Amino acid sequence: MRIRVLGIGMGPQHVTPEVAEALRGADYVLAARKAEHDPLLDVRRAICERHGVELAVVPDPPRDRDDPADYPAAVAAWHEERAAAYERVLARRGGTAAFLVWGDPSLYDSTIRVVRRVAGRLGADWDVLPGVSAPHLLAARHRIVLHEVGRPVHITTARRLPEAVAAGQDSIVVLLGGEPELSGLADWTVWWGANLGAPGEELAHGRVGDVLPDLVAARERARAAAGWVMDICLLRRGR
Amino acid sequence: MRIRVLGIGMGPQHVTPEVAEALRGADYVLAARKAEHDPLLDVRRAICERHGVELAVVPDPPRDRDDPADYPAAVAAWHEERAAAYERVLARRGGTAAFLVWGDPSLYDSTIRVVRRVAGRLGADWDVLPGVSAPHLLAARHRIVLHEVGRPVHITTARRLPEAVAAGQDSIVVLLGGEPELSGLADWTVWWGANLGAPGEELAHGRVGDVLPDLVAARERARAAAGWVMDICLLRRGR
Repeated sequence: MRIRVLGIGMGPQHVTPEVAEALRGADYVLAARKAEHDPLLDVRRAICERHGVELAVVPDPPRDRDDPADYPAAVAAWHEERAAAYERVLARRGGTAAFLVWGDPSLYDSTIRVVRRVAGRLGADWDVLPGVSAPHLLAARHRIVLHEVGRPVHITTARRLPEAVAAGQDSIVVLLGGEPELSGLADWTVWWGANLGAPGEELAHGRVGDVLPDLVAARERARAAAGWVMDICLLRRGR
Repeated sequence: MRIRVLGIGMGPQHVTPEVAEALRGADYVLAARKAEHDPLLDVRRAICERHGVELAVVPDPPRDRDDPADYPAAVAAWHEERAAAYERVLARRGGTAAFLVWGDPSLYDSTIRVVRRVAGRLGADWDVLPGVSAPHLLAARHRIVLHEVGRPVHITTARRLPEAVAAGQDSIVVLLGGEPELSGLADWTVWWGANLGAPGEELAHGRVGDVLPDLVAARERARAAAGWVMDICLLRRGR
């Protein structure tokens, strides 16, 4: 048995030749249905059709989206339920299965952790192929480099943005989790995008204090156009 | 006149469909020759041949590799010389030109800064398409996520690694610049790679204090196999 974790970037336009080859060699793609209408499932279906591989859909265990006191433990429990659901299918079907990961599997995605667990229990070989990630597409759309010359870039979540600001980070990419709290960062510069590479794509750029109302309106346009919204931004201290 | 900045990942296996389409629509690819034998120029030539586009080679201005007191100013002067060399070719030929960027253009690469300057002076349209970057390929090879659950990852240069360690960063990706100083980080864990996706690829992983001699030997094997070495690592505090 073999399991392949494949980064697909922001859609078919980013499926690399090595990922396309892996898809041609797979017996089926396993994917979770995360909602009754799951738009990322539609993207996966389109990629499977293009590359001639079956899509096997597994209902996703419900996740408690409230803010639990012990966040890592809550995530671990949810990963375990998802792993058990995949494991039942893999154990029954065998062969070569693939998982398609939006963006790249190494940033804020649970697939690698889930597959490591399942592959260990099933004694399956597994590997990972990279994809184009959202920070790189954000930078491309705005035609920028993520950091200043020779300096670092810090990638974090909306939840942890205040920590990064307090620690003196100058260039911060914020992923995951809806609306980062920007109201205290009026003099920072933001490069923002929603639904990058997908229906309803929106961009905004400028001094946070000036551009925030436009950004909020653009997020709502993206949500209205696509039925969902995923956003990401780069924040830089000062102009 | 149009200029396109195209991320090519770590080689032909990562050239996305949208980048392939951009190459088919370009009149020529501009590339610098950085040494008498420039291995990255060979990769660019292979990609141009595969996609049927001419490669126009421009000798790169010499760069002072000594450590100047004012590093950003030295980089800026060197970018200006490179920009002037490209500008002469672009002004003479016109049409649609493309630059192929190893990895993704938004991390530790000067192409965007150079093209912004040249396109402004020539009044050319320009855009950027993303690619698979070295941190994502490193993570894929080691089958890991770059950060711990819900936590940040910090991307920096070998030169600035000590600052990141002193500031309390837990997950640090180190790019650019040969051999980061790891001897003070014996109890950290390292996931390391050299020449990823290219001839002489080498990987190493473990507690820094245990794996450092293997890592140094592997770097020399990569250099011997390919004639050059480019390495990258993820460092995580503790086990």
